[in-house]
Amino acid sequence: MTETVISSASKEVVIGFDRPFVVIGERINPSGRRMLAEEMSAGDYSRVEKDARAQIEAGADMLDVNAGLPMADEKKILAEAVKLVQSLTDVPLAIDSSAVEPLAAGLAVYQGKALVNSVNGEDERLESVLPLVKKYGAAVIGMSHDAEGLSPDPEVRFKAAKKIVERAADHGIPACDVVIDPLVFPVGAVADAGRTVLDVTRRVRGELKVNTVCGASNVGFGLPERRSLNAAFIAMMMTAGLTSAIANPLHEEQMNAIKAADAILGHDQQCMAWMTRARAKMKAEKGKN
Amino acid sequence: MTETVISSASKEVVIGFDRPFVVIGERINPSGRRMLAEEMSAGDYSRVEKDARAQIEAGADMLDVNAGLPMADEKKILAEAVKLVQSLTDVPLAIDSSAVEPLAAGLAVYQGKALVNSVNGEDERLESVLPLVKKYGAAVIGMSHDAEGLSPDPEVRFKAAKKIVERAADHGIPACDVVIDPLVFPVGAVADAGRTVLDVTRRVRGELKVNTVCGASNVGFGLPERRSLNAAFIAMMMTAGLTSAIANPLHEEQMNAIKAADAILGHDQQCMAWMTRARAKMKAEKGKN
Repeated sequence: MTETVISSASKEVVIGFDRPFVVIGERINPSGRRMLAEEMSAGDYSRVEKDARAQIEAGADMLDVNAGLPMADEKKILAEAVKLVQSLTDVPLAIDSSAVEPLAAGLAVYQGKALVNSVNGEDERLESVLPLVKKYGAAVIGMSHDAEGLSPDPEVRFKAAKKIVERAADHGIPACDVVIDPLVFPVGAVADAGRTVLDVTRRVRGELKVNTVCGASNVGFGLPERRSLNAAFIAMMMTAGLTSAIANPLHEEQMNAIKAADAILGHDQQCMAWMTRARAKMKAEKGKN
Repeated sequence: MTETVISSASKEVVIGFDRPFVVIGERINPSGRRMLAEEMSAGDYSRVEKDARAQIEAGADMLDVNAGLPMADEKKILAEAVKLVQSLTDVPLAIDSSAVEPLAAGLAVYQGKALVNSVNGEDERLESVLPLVKKYGAAVIGMSHDAEGLSPDPEVRFKAAKKIVERAADHGIPACDVVIDPLVFPVGAVADAGRTVLDVTRRVRGELKVNTVCGASNVGFGLPERRSLNAAFIAMMMTAGLTSAIANPLHEEQMNAIKAADAILGHDQQCMAWMTRARAKMKAEKGKN
């Protein structure tokens, strides 16, 4: 019954084994988005604002905020983006950077209990990020790899996950505040990528008893009809125990699959969320005609 | 690595743990289809013919043939329908009746190794159907309930499944020729219906080591956007080990989910089937414009 509580100043979101799935909107991230990158570098956050609103309207429970810009002051921009998004909405945030200083800057201005994205099993990263997580009383995403890099071997990934949970405990961070990413490889490139990640997810949940998160859109990389693949994949991962994902809530097929899986797993009391969503869709369809 | 081989005179289909999922087209069934019922009762099989062709074109690996008509000679009609469908196509058939005599009549005319749909855990049904299955060297679907009727309790369902596999063995029918239906209840009516059927499926596969089949469209009964629910459900059931379903192959979202789950589970070598399907869809879309 592990529950990870994330919050803003006024709202809590709980990632949990018996809870509705938590969707963390992935859009506020300049990698691969040239326009957004240029604007953020220039201090123009109008697109960030639009992305925040659109994702929440589409059903995001949380938003990820990343400012990974080459040749720009990521630290300053991430802090500004976090402040801006928190001024627009009460959904809690994941503060996302591959560098430590921007994470620190984002956490310093964040109101509530953030989700830090992310740590991994490398000693250096663990020892620089975990003290920050502890200092701010945050929760943290742990990518299941270590200094050796991404491994296709489920055993190696499970060990990295275990190391992160244990090291977090050494820093006084409880297991319920560690959310493990089992790492999704594209099935078009790695034949047993799907089975492996399902297996790691089951083990992380069953043996480490922690929550899990993944970037769902990787699985279909390089294949046609990628969104359909992603949609089925996320329902399958939920069956294996996945409790949250960093995903694009504007992809309707995927959101359908998530809400359907919630209903099927008994995480949607009397299917109320399903029915509400269906009604809203019918209304929107009518509006179009 | 259990494999259930079903065949027509010239084609084999294998339902198996490490095989692509087998879709058994459900359309040739007069229940709830008034026009089809009237026509079949009058000996008019033109709609049966159309349904057979359409389902195979949409990707059905096998076809279910049911002639459960009130006030009509089900025995004669089922035999005629089986002969007709076999004259049109080489896909193997499931011969479907709740009565024993029609099953016998269908088996008598069937060319190949049929799948008998179905037996359950009731002694009377077991002792009347299993000798037929043995006589014709067929395989059989076992519904996981007994004389007590459908139970929401997974333990009761597992026991019924186990009884069927054991009784089949007593009749000289190997476990690989028994395909268990874990029984799908609507999640709109029974809150833990989804978890229960996933659980029964895992146990039947893990402990009895037999193949499984289900009628996927039940899960969304009474709820809006039912097809989306069914699509996610079938991918989730495949994650739990389901190896075949009696389904409507004309429901595209569901077929997408099945093919996606095959790719993700590593049952679609190099994602060739996925890519072929995507290309065919793109071509069809182009044709429309």
